[in-house]
Amino acid sequence: MMIDQDRTSTTDVAAPLSPDMLRRMDGYWRAANYLSVGQIYLRDNAMLDRPLTVADVKPRLLGHWGTTPGLNFLYVHLNRLIVEHDLDMINIIGPGHGGPGLVAHTYLEGSYTERYPAIERSRSGMHRLFRQFSWPGGIPSHVAPETPGSIHEGGELGYSLAHAYGAAFDNPDLLVACIVGDGEAETGALAASWHSNKFLNPARDGAVLPILHLNGYKIANPTILARIDRGELDALLRGYGHEPLYVEGSDPAVVHQQLASALDAALARIKAIQATARADGAIVERPRWPMIVFRTPKGWTGPKAVDGKPVEGTWRSHQVPIADFKNPEHIRQLDAWMRSYRPEELFDADGKFLDDYASLAPTGHRRMGSNPHANGGELLQPLSLPDFHAYAVPVPVAGQVKAEATRVLGRYLRDVMKFSMDAKNFRLFGPDETASNRLADVYDVAGKVWMAEIDAVDEDLSTDGRVMEVLSEHLCQGWLEGYLLTGRHGLFSCYEAFVHIVDSMVNQHAKWLKVTKSIPWRRPIASLNYLLTSHVWRQDHNGLSHQDPGFIDHITNETADVARIYLPPDANCLLSVADHALRSRGYVNVIVAGKQPDWQWLGMDAAVRHCTVGAGIWDWAGDDADPDVVMACAGDVPTLETLAAVTMLRAYVPDIRIRVVNVVDLMVLQPQSEHPHGLDDRAFEALFTADKPVIFAFHGYPALIHKLTYARANHRNIHVRGYKERGTTTTPFDMVVLNDLDRYRLALDAIERIPRLADRVPAETARYWTTLERHKLYIAEQGDDMPEVRDWQWPT
Amino acid sequence: MMIDQDRTSTTDVAAPLSPDMLRRMDGYWRAANYLSVGQIYLRDNAMLDRPLTVADVKPRLLGHWGTTPGLNFLYVHLNRLIVEHDLDMINIIGPGHGGPGLVAHTYLEGSYTERYPAIERSRSGMHRLFRQFSWPGGIPSHVAPETPGSIHEGGELGYSLAHAYGAAFDNPDLLVACIVGDGEAETGALAASWHSNKFLNPARDGAVLPILHLNGYKIANPTILARIDRGELDALLRGYGHEPLYVEGSDPAVVHQQLASALDAALARIKAIQATARADGAIVERPRWPMIVFRTPKGWTGPKAVDGKPVEGTWRSHQVPIADFKNPEHIRQLDAWMRSYRPEELFDADGKFLDDYASLAPTGHRRMGSNPHANGGELLQPLSLPDFHAYAVPVPVAGQVKAEATRVLGRYLRDVMKFSMDAKNFRLFGPDETASNRLADVYDVAGKVWMAEIDAVDEDLSTDGRVMEVLSEHLCQGWLEGYLLTGRHGLFSCYEAFVHIVDSMVNQHAKWLKVTKSIPWRRPIASLNYLLTSHVWRQDHNGLSHQDPGFIDHITNETADVARIYLPPDANCLLSVADHALRSRGYVNVIVAGKQPDWQWLGMDAAVRHCTVGAGIWDWAGDDADPDVVMACAGDVPTLETLAAVTMLRAYVPDIRIRVVNVVDLMVLQPQSEHPHGLDDRAFEALFTADKPVIFAFHGYPALIHKLTYARANHRNIHVRGYKERGTTTTPFDMVVLNDLDRYRLALDAIERIPRLADRVPAETARYWTTLERHKLYIAEQGDDMPEVRDWQWPT
Repeated sequence: MMIDQDRTSTTDVAAPLSPDMLRRMDGYWRAANYLSVGQIYLRDNAMLDRPLTVADVKPRLLGHWGTTPGLNFLYVHLNRLIVEHDLDMINIIGPGHGGPGLVAHTYLEGSYTERYPAIERSRSGMHRLFRQFSWPGGIPSHVAPETPGSIHEGGELGYSLAHAYGAAFDNPDLLVACIVGDGEAETGALAASWHSNKFLNPARDGAVLPILHLNGYKIANPTILARIDRGELDALLRGYGHEPLYVEGSDPAVVHQQLASALDAALARIKAIQATARADGAIVERPRWPMIVFRTPKGWTGPKAVDGKPVEGTWRSHQVPIADFKNPEHIRQLDAWMRSYRPEELFDADGKFLDDYASLAPTGHRRMGSNPHANGGELLQPLSLPDFHAYAVPVPVAGQVKAEATRVLGRYLRDVMKFSMDAKNFRLFGPDETASNRLADVYDVAGKVWMAEIDAVDEDLSTDGRVMEVLSEHLCQGWLEGYLLTGRHGLFSCYEAFVHIVDSMVNQHAKWLKVTKSIPWRRPIASLNYLLTSHVWRQDHNGLSHQDPGFIDHITNETADVARIYLPPDANCLLSVADHALRSRGYVNVIVAGKQPDWQWLGMDAAVRHCTVGAGIWDWAGDDADPDVVMACAGDVPTLETLAAVTMLRAYVPDIRIRVVNVVDLMVLQPQSEHPHGLDDRAFEALFTADKPVIFAFHGYPALIHKLTYARANHRNIHVRGYKERGTTTTPFDMVVLNDLDRYRLALDAIERIPRLADRVPAETARYWTTLERHKLYIAEQGDDMPEVRDWQWPT
Repeated sequence: MMIDQDRTSTTDVAAPLSPDMLRRMDGYWRAANYLSVGQIYLRDNAMLDRPLTVADVKPRLLGHWGTTPGLNFLYVHLNRLIVEHDLDMINIIGPGHGGPGLVAHTYLEGSYTERYPAIERSRSGMHRLFRQFSWPGGIPSHVAPETPGSIHEGGELGYSLAHAYGAAFDNPDLLVACIVGDGEAETGALAASWHSNKFLNPARDGAVLPILHLNGYKIANPTILARIDRGELDALLRGYGHEPLYVEGSDPAVVHQQLASALDAALARIKAIQATARADGAIVERPRWPMIVFRTPKGWTGPKAVDGKPVEGTWRSHQVPIADFKNPEHIRQLDAWMRSYRPEELFDADGKFLDDYASLAPTGHRRMGSNPHANGGELLQPLSLPDFHAYAVPVPVAGQVKAEATRVLGRYLRDVMKFSMDAKNFRLFGPDETASNRLADVYDVAGKVWMAEIDAVDEDLSTDGRVMEVLSEHLCQGWLEGYLLTGRHGLFSCYEAFVHIVDSMVNQHAKWLKVTKSIPWRRPIASLNYLLTSHVWRQDHNGLSHQDPGFIDHITNETADVARIYLPPDANCLLSVADHALRSRGYVNVIVAGKQPDWQWLGMDAAVRHCTVGAGIWDWAGDDADPDVVMACAGDVPTLETLAAVTMLRAYVPDIRIRVVNVVDLMVLQPQSEHPHGLDDRAFEALFTADKPVIFAFHGYPALIHKLTYARANHRNIHVRGYKERGTTTTPFDMVVLNDLDRYRLALDAIERIPRLADRVPAETARYWTTLERHKLYIAEQGDDMPEVRDWQWPT
C-alpha cells in the first residue's frame, strides 16, 4: 500500500508523547515485533547469539506476519491508555490470524507466563515460546482459546465487532477495543455489525471503540475499504454512525504521536458521552461514537523487498514474507530483519524484558491478557431463575387441553428476565421474531433495545430494553456469543429454517467451547441456547423457503462434548428443558418447539421425569410388555400424529399391542460410546425392544435417526418418517400428508410391519387411500384441515 | 412511519408526468393494489358485485400487505421507463413477501396468463387469481419460482442485491432494478452487497439500480435505516459508492411526480455513465452509480386504523391488516378499502383491465414478467469447453507420480475461461482464495475484476477481469446465483470449512431448483458448482477453526433431484468430474479435492470410466473375488491412507485377500429409491460384498456413510473412519492419526475384522502402538511428517 504521509488527516498531529515515552513505547513495539517474527521463524537461537543459520529456522513456516506489526502497535498504545486512565479494557482482534502478536504481548506483560508457566520470561522461555508456535503439540497460529485475553478466535473472519458489542452490553465500565481487519470488513457479518451502535446504551452499557485496521490487503488482493477514496470511506463510517479519527503513515515516530492523539481524543469523547448519558435525569440518546481508522503498511517493519519484489506494504507480506531458505541470501535477510528490532536494547542477557519498557504495561487484571472479562467464566454468576413449575400448564388428562408451548415459555422467560434485572446478566435475542414466536410476555418486564429514533406509534421499544431484535441472525448470534463469552446468559429464538444462516458461526463457537474444556484456566461459560420455533411443520403458510429442519443435523456433527438437542413434545416439557438449558454450562443447546395451539400430554411432574431421562415409554398411551409394534416419536407434531395413529390403530385392530416411546433428548439415541447422553444398549432395548418393528415419527430429516441409531441391534426394524423436502404453501395437516408423516400413514406403517396382521393390510391400505382422497377434497374445497384432524383428542 | 412531505428532498419535484399520464399511472397502481388485496382476502365476489360478506373471505388469511403497495407503485413507474426508453429490464424484489404485488402486475400486463392460461384476464380468471393465492394447491404467498419475471425467492431475506449484480454481469444492455427492503438491509448478506459496485464494469456489464424501499418497519419493529437521520443515511449510501435520489411522501400524486423525476434522472445518469465508459478509447473508471431511496408508508392506501389502532404507516400492516371477521365492522372496512381503488373505473364488466391503463405496460419480452433474463434457461448456451483429456496428468503406473489436483484443474479452467471469452458466459468466484486454491493459471487469460483503485504493486487485477474475488462467501454465492439464474455458467472455489457460511443460501437455491423442475415454462439453468479445497485434512497448519468437512452432510439433506457430491481421488478424476459438472443442468454439484502435491492413481481413460460409474473396484490395487476384507475409500487423503494400509497389510500378511473400492460419487451409496445415482443392491454388493468386512476410509464425518448406507444388507459390516472433530495445529499425517484414519489404524482395523487372522491381532496391535509412539517422537522433535509417510509410494 502506498501510504501518503502528507495526506490530510483529521487527527491533528499533536505530540502527546514525550520523547522518552515515545522511545519506550517504540521499544515495546519492537520487542513485540521481534517476538512475533521469532515465533513464526525460529526453532533455535532465539536471542540471536550467533548469526542465524538454516538450522535455526523451523522446517515448516506457518503464520501470518502481515497484520501483526499493526496489531502490536495498537496493543502498546492501548496499554498506555489503560495505565493513564486505569481503564478496564479488553481487545477483540478481528484479524486474528495475527496470533503471534497477541501471544508476544501477553508474554511481555506477564499474562502468558502466568497461564503457561513453562513459557518463562527468560532465555529458555523465549526459546520455548518460539518453538511452540504453530508447531505440533504447540499452539495455533491464530488468536485462539489458548490465547490469554482473547474471546475471539481468529480463524473464520467477520465476527469481531458483533462479539465486541456483546461484551460491552451490561458492562458499563468496560471499554472494548475492537480491531476490525479491512479484509474481514468485506464479510456479511461484519458489514452488518457496524449498526450495532443502534443497540448500545451509553448509560447502561460499556463502550466499543472500533479500530479499522486498514492495511490494504487480504491474502492476494487489495481490500475494498483501502481502495475507495477518503471521502467515500469517511461518508461510510459516518453513515454507520461513527465519528472517525484517522491515523495514517509509515514512519513509526509520526504514527505513534498520531495514534496517541487519536486515542486520547476517542477516550475523551467516550467519557463525555458516558458522562452525559449517566448524568442525573439525562435523556439517553444515541451518540455518534468515535472510531479510529488506522492505515499503516501491511507487514510494517518487515522486509521491504524479497527477491526484488516489494513485500512491505503489499499482500506478499500476508503470511511468511521470506521463505525458501535454500537461498542463502534469505537467511541473511531474516537475520537482518530480526536484528533491526535491536533486541539487545530490549532484553537482558537472560532474555528478560527490560524494565524500562516492561513497566509501561498495566498490571494485574488491568493487563488485557489477564482481564477477567476475557475469561468470562471467572465472572459468571448463575442465573437467578424462577421455579419453572409455577408456569406449568395443568394437564389433568393427556390430550384434552391445548396450549401454545412458546407462549407458555414466554411467561417463564418474562420472569427469568425479571429475576435478572438486578444482576443484568440475561438478554433475549431474536431476528425481529420475538413476538411472532409468541414470547412477547417478556415485554412486560423489558422492552426491545432501540437507540435510534422512536416514534409515537412504536411499542415495546426503549433505550434500556433487554430484548435484542435486529433482522440479522448473524448479529443475534454474534452479540449473544460475545455476551456469553464475557460471563453472562442468553437465549436466541429463531425461525427454524433460517437459523442455518449462522451454521458457520455456531461451528466456530462449538469449536471454541470444545477447546476450552481442555484449557484448565478457562472457566466454564453459560451454554449457547437456541429456541427454534416457527418450525418446519407449521410453515405451511410461508411455504417451502421456510421449511428446513436441518439445523439439528448440523449440530450432530459438533463434538459430543458440546452438542445437545431437545425436542420437547409439549409446553411442560419445554419449560423443563429450557430451565435445564439455562442452568447448564459449556453446551450448545438446541430446543425445537412449536408455537401453535396444540394438545398437551404431560403434567409437570411427569414432564420433569420424562425430560430428565430424555426418552421414555408413555405408559398411559401404550405400554405393552410384548408389543406388536413400538410407536416412537420425537418432536411436537410427530408426537401428535403418533398418538392419533395409536387411537386409530386401537379402533381398527382392537387386540393390537402397542408401546409408545417419546424422545425429548435426541442424543439418547446414540451409543453411549459416542455421546454422554447415549443410552446403553440394555436401556435402549428396554424402550425400543430388541426385535420388534419401530415406527419412528421424527421432526426432522429421517436419515438423522438412522445416523444416530445405526449401531443399535434393532436398527434394521426402525422405520422412520420425517420431513423429506416435500413442502409448499398448504395446510398444516397437508404438510404431514405430503411427507408421509400423517396419522393414517403411520397407522398403516404399523399394520404393514406386524406379521400377524398381514391379512389386514389390503383393507387398511384401501382405508388409507380413501382418507387421502377425502383430504385432497377438503383442501381443494376449503383450504383447511380436515375437521377430524382439527378436533381430534386423545381419548380419556 | 411519519412521512414528512415537506422534508427537503434532493429530487426536484418537477412534474414530468402529464395530468393524463398521472391519472393513468395512478389507475394502473390502483388496479395492482386492488388485485393484491383481493388475493390476500377473497375467495369469492372478486369484482365486488355485491357488498362483501364473511363468506367471500378466505377462511385462513395469509399474505403480506405492508410492502406490496410500494412494490406496485415502483412497478408501474419502471414500466413507464421501459416503454419510454425501450429498456431491457428485470426487477429483483428483495421484500419478496410482497408476492401478491408481482403476481398482480404480471397478471395485468398479460405475462401471468401466458404462463398460466387458466388464470384468464377475465372475471373468472380474476376469481381464480384470488383463490389460488396462498391456498393449498395454489401459489406461494412470496415471490417464488412460480412467479413469472422473478429470479429471486422472497422467503429468506438478504440476497436481492447480490442477485441483481450477478444478473447484470456480462449483460451490457440489461438494467436490473433491485428493490431492497429496509428490513433485509439489516442482514449481513445485504449489508455486504452494497460494495458489489466495485466489481461492475460499466463498459462491459449492465447496470443495477438499487431502490431502497424505506417503508419503516419489519414484522414488529422499525428498521434501522428508517430511523437514522437523513444526513447519516445519505452518508452511508454515498459511502457505499452511490448517488442517492430521494423520493418520499404519502400523497400519491406528489410521489408519482417525484419518482418519475428520480427515475428519469437515474436513467439519464446510468446512460451517461455507460456512454462515457463505452466511448472509444475510454479509460474505464468506477462511477458513482445512482440509486433511489423510496420512503413511503408501509401498507400505503390500506386501512388507516383498525380497532382504533394506527395501521397504515406502521408495522401493523406487515401482513393482514384487517383480520377477525367475526367483527362485522371489519368486513365493512375491507369492503370500503377495496372499493377505495374504484375497480369499476379499472376493469370492465367482464373483468378485463381497461385499455386506457393496460396500454401503459410494455409488450412482449419487454414486460418484466416475460423478460427472458428472468427465465435464464431460455438464454442458456452450453459452455464451449476444452477437451479435458488434454490436461491429463500422465499416470503410467499408479502411485508413482505426484500432482496438485487443483493446479491441474486450474489449467483446464484457464482454457474454459479462454473458450468462453467471446460468449462471455463463464466466471470463477472465490473469497480471496483463487491463488491460494492453486487456480491462478486462469489469470493468464482473465484477471480479477476490480473497479476500485489499482496500485502499481497489484497483480492480476483489471477492470475487465472475469475472476470474482471478494472476502465474502455470501457475495460469491449471491453473485454466482444471479449469474446462473440469468443463463450463464460459473464455479465457486472455497475453503471447505468456510463454505458453511452459505449453508442457508445454498438451501434456498436448491429449493428454487427443485421447484423449477416441476414448472414447465422454467427452462433448466446451469448447475451451481462448488470446488471445495484447502480441505479438512490439509488444514493442519491453520488448525481446528479451518477443519470442517460438514458441508457435504448439509448437501445430502437437499432433495435428490438436485444434490450431487463428488470426491475425486486424484487430478484426472477431478478433471473428469469438473467437466461433467460444467456440462450439467439444474444441480448443486459439490466437488471436494485437495490442493497439495499428492500421489496420482488413474490415467485419464481409467479416470473417466471410474467417474462415470461413480465407484469401482481398483483391480490394480486389489480385486479378490473372495476377499477377506474390502478396503473402501472416498476422498483423496483417505484413498492415500487406504492404499498405504494395503501395502502394509500385504507385507504383514502375505496371504491376505483384499479388495479395494474407491467411491467418487458419494450418492451411489444411497439406495436407488432415494437417489437416482444410487446403486441397486446387486451392484452395491458386487462392490462391497454381501457379508465381508468393509473398512471405509472417508473424507468427512463417518456418520454420513452410515446415513447413506444403513439400508444396505451388508451395512452391519461397514466400519467407517473419518473426521471426528479431532484437530489442531499439527502435521498432515498427525491429522489422520488424531482421527484414526491413518494407514496403521486402517490396517489394524482390517486385521481385527478378519476372523482367520485373530491370532495376528496382538502382534499388529503392538506394531500399531509402536508406530504411534514413533510418530509422536517425530512430531515432537521435528514438527514434520514421518519420512516413510512423506516418501511412500504405491509399489510397482
